[in-house]
Amino acid sequence: MDVEIITIGDEIITGHTIDSNSTFIAQQLTDSGFNVKFTSSVGDNIEAMEEISRVALKRSHIVITTGGLGPTDDDLTKRAIVKVFKRNLVFHEDILAQIKERFQRRGVEMPALNQNQALLPQGARFFPNKYGSAVGICIAEEGRIFIALPGVPMEMKQIFSDEVLPYLKSLKTGSTLKVLKLRTTGIIESKLAEMITSNLKFEQGVRLAYLPSFSGVDLRVMASGATEIEADTRAHTLEKQIENICFKYIYGKNEETLEGLVGQLLKDDGKWLSVAESCTGGQLGMTITSVTGSSAYFKGGIVAYSNEIKNSQLGVSNEILNADGAVSDQCAIAMAEGVRKLFNSDYSLSITGIAGPDGGTSEKPVGLVFIGLASSNRSIAHRFTFGTERNAVRSRAVYSALELLRRELLQIS
Amino acid sequence: MDVEIITIGDEIITGHTIDSNSTFIAQQLTDSGFNVKFTSSVGDNIEAMEEISRVALKRSHIVITTGGLGPTDDDLTKRAIVKVFKRNLVFHEDILAQIKERFQRRGVEMPALNQNQALLPQGARFFPNKYGSAVGICIAEEGRIFIALPGVPMEMKQIFSDEVLPYLKSLKTGSTLKVLKLRTTGIIESKLAEMITSNLKFEQGVRLAYLPSFSGVDLRVMASGATEIEADTRAHTLEKQIENICFKYIYGKNEETLEGLVGQLLKDDGKWLSVAESCTGGQLGMTITSVTGSSAYFKGGIVAYSNEIKNSQLGVSNEILNADGAVSDQCAIAMAEGVRKLFNSDYSLSITGIAGPDGGTSEKPVGLVFIGLASSNRSIAHRFTFGTERNAVRSRAVYSALELLRRELLQIS
Repeated sequence: MDVEIITIGDEIITGHTIDSNSTFIAQQLTDSGFNVKFTSSVGDNIEAMEEISRVALKRSHIVITTGGLGPTDDDLTKRAIVKVFKRNLVFHEDILAQIKERFQRRGVEMPALNQNQALLPQGARFFPNKYGSAVGICIAEEGRIFIALPGVPMEMKQIFSDEVLPYLKSLKTGSTLKVLKLRTTGIIESKLAEMITSNLKFEQGVRLAYLPSFSGVDLRVMASGATEIEADTRAHTLEKQIENICFKYIYGKNEETLEGLVGQLLKDDGKWLSVAESCTGGQLGMTITSVTGSSAYFKGGIVAYSNEIKNSQLGVSNEILNADGAVSDQCAIAMAEGVRKLFNSDYSLSITGIAGPDGGTSEKPVGLVFIGLASSNRSIAHRFTFGTERNAVRSRAVYSALELLRRELLQIS
Repeated sequence: MDVEIITIGDEIITGHTIDSNSTFIAQQLTDSGFNVKFTSSVGDNIEAMEEISRVALKRSHIVITTGGLGPTDDDLTKRAIVKVFKRNLVFHEDILAQIKERFQRRGVEMPALNQNQALLPQGARFFPNKYGSAVGICIAEEGRIFIALPGVPMEMKQIFSDEVLPYLKSLKTGSTLKVLKLRTTGIIESKLAEMITSNLKFEQGVRLAYLPSFSGVDLRVMASGATEIEADTRAHTLEKQIENICFKYIYGKNEETLEGLVGQLLKDDGKWLSVAESCTGGQLGMTITSVTGSSAYFKGGIVAYSNEIKNSQLGVSNEILNADGAVSDQCAIAMAEGVRKLFNSDYSLSITGIAGPDGGTSEKPVGLVFIGLASSNRSIAHRFTFGTERNAVRSRAVYSALELLRRELLQIS
């Protein structure tokens, strides 16, 4: 069944709040096999709300709104519902009693304004709200279902999970959808697509999406089926096919991260890591320590932003700094070896490059980065070019360093 | 003029990515006095994209889409445009040349797939993309403007700011809106609101919004007027009033950042900074070096994630580590003094705390952070509690450290 989500509020439409409500509802519904077709947002404007509700009811079986159910003047959702469905508002004594009780428990007298919240469109059913005074509203008419939920995320989530999702699942018939994600790094989107499409013919009912970010390209596998088993089977068949084609670039699945995975490998192995950073200024260390429990394998690092510190702290020789320069494979190796020795760690990573926008030359342009790795086995450095945008250069350098370590730990060449 | 924003992608409609693109565009347009009336999202589905584009073009003057312009198969925006506007795709040699050059610069051969990106709907103008191969597309027809931008946030933001916004502003007539931003830190939203509303009566035509983030609370001043001068005068009057009330907490205006401002102060003074980080793992260094030209005042730092490194590198005594613990004002001071000496810098900052979710005790709960500062004058440490969410604790610690240095440099107590 097609679903449309509408979030209501001036704070969304003016870009002052990120709309996380529709993300939450969309994910829950997709994971339960519903087809979320559209999401939209409107401000606190009754005409716009009517317009968007009418359009949604025409093209989608289920319409879910959030926001605009509070007691204050700018909360207009019920007024819009009444117009769209041509119904009156009816007063519900039982809802009023519940609201009064809620205020009593908090030791506050109920403001008169809250009486409005006991008014419901005629013939509507309601979903109780555990954390607030605005109940969820549900109207079913002519094969369409319209559900209005409060906008406060905590309240919305409670009503949605406890009431709305079970209700919608009970109505569900027909096909189901399975979604999973394969995470790749070290290869650009178009190359990956070429590799996959030239080796794979997609079966019916499956789709693949490419989602690039600084950490790499995620592959989203979507498979539909008449039953859950059918959708599952299709999704996992495609997953296996893709893994066979580009296993080298796949580091994880679904919510796994490169930093989490590398951390797990180090932890399992009882190994310690340290880092030496120049152009990333600490971002590699920050990314590694974004993982809870990283103190079990990460000792720390040196941010050697100036050549003086590269020399005095990391022991990069003035010969290297003068002859090869700070942005060179020699310097990357010396940095990695320097911090490994200083911190007495098993592995170390180093990053040195030109993040831009200034500081580039024709020989060493902005975006040029050398990444080093040192272990008891060997020291290596790789050369990368990461474009011209400072933040992108730094972020790509961080994930490339983590990928270098992943391959070293797994002995992937 | 009414604007409608449409974001395209299965990852949005399935709730796997939060839609930050429409938030960015909505905020920029609102700040420039446009009326964003609707935002919506669709998946990578050509019929749904057609449907939503047609509805949008009927009810809004300007329609802006993001996503679906990449080279891979799931990028369908252009195919939808062609159907909606009944135009053919035309090949642009100049765009192809630019894409080829971009790949050349990165030392990669252009995959054949990218050729698609040189196809544009007949009669469309295009907006160049500095960071990627998908250009922005603009079609003007019958009083409506349709703009399609790539979905990668970095690329979208560049094209929007450099090309789209100036273009749309040039079309604008009618009443004008002046928006400016005062940036505060070190005070929570409700306290700031109390301070301002109890001291200030708002004049007609002005509005104030509070925008909290990890770096502090931004105050958005919005003033409308029949002329630009009127709007300007109103905005600056309110700005001055607010400055008088809470000057102590205001560190900058509009796009100024705390890290940029502190950097400028150090640079003007010819002073050098170094840092010692524990729970932030490098985030303070990363934030400082996110500023272009930070090599003029930032030497680097030590990430001392383990106690071993705090002792061996920073010289924090075992007495402090055992008696007071790593999360203490004594340790923060020793870390700051240690790195200042080691790096021979004028100022140094240190951060040590419990980022969570684990590692808290009743005496030292998750979110407890000590921030130290050392200079030739004095060493100090401040105690903070930053809540319980790991990312929030770390980010707030970074900005509190920068604010501590700002006040030291400006001698604000």
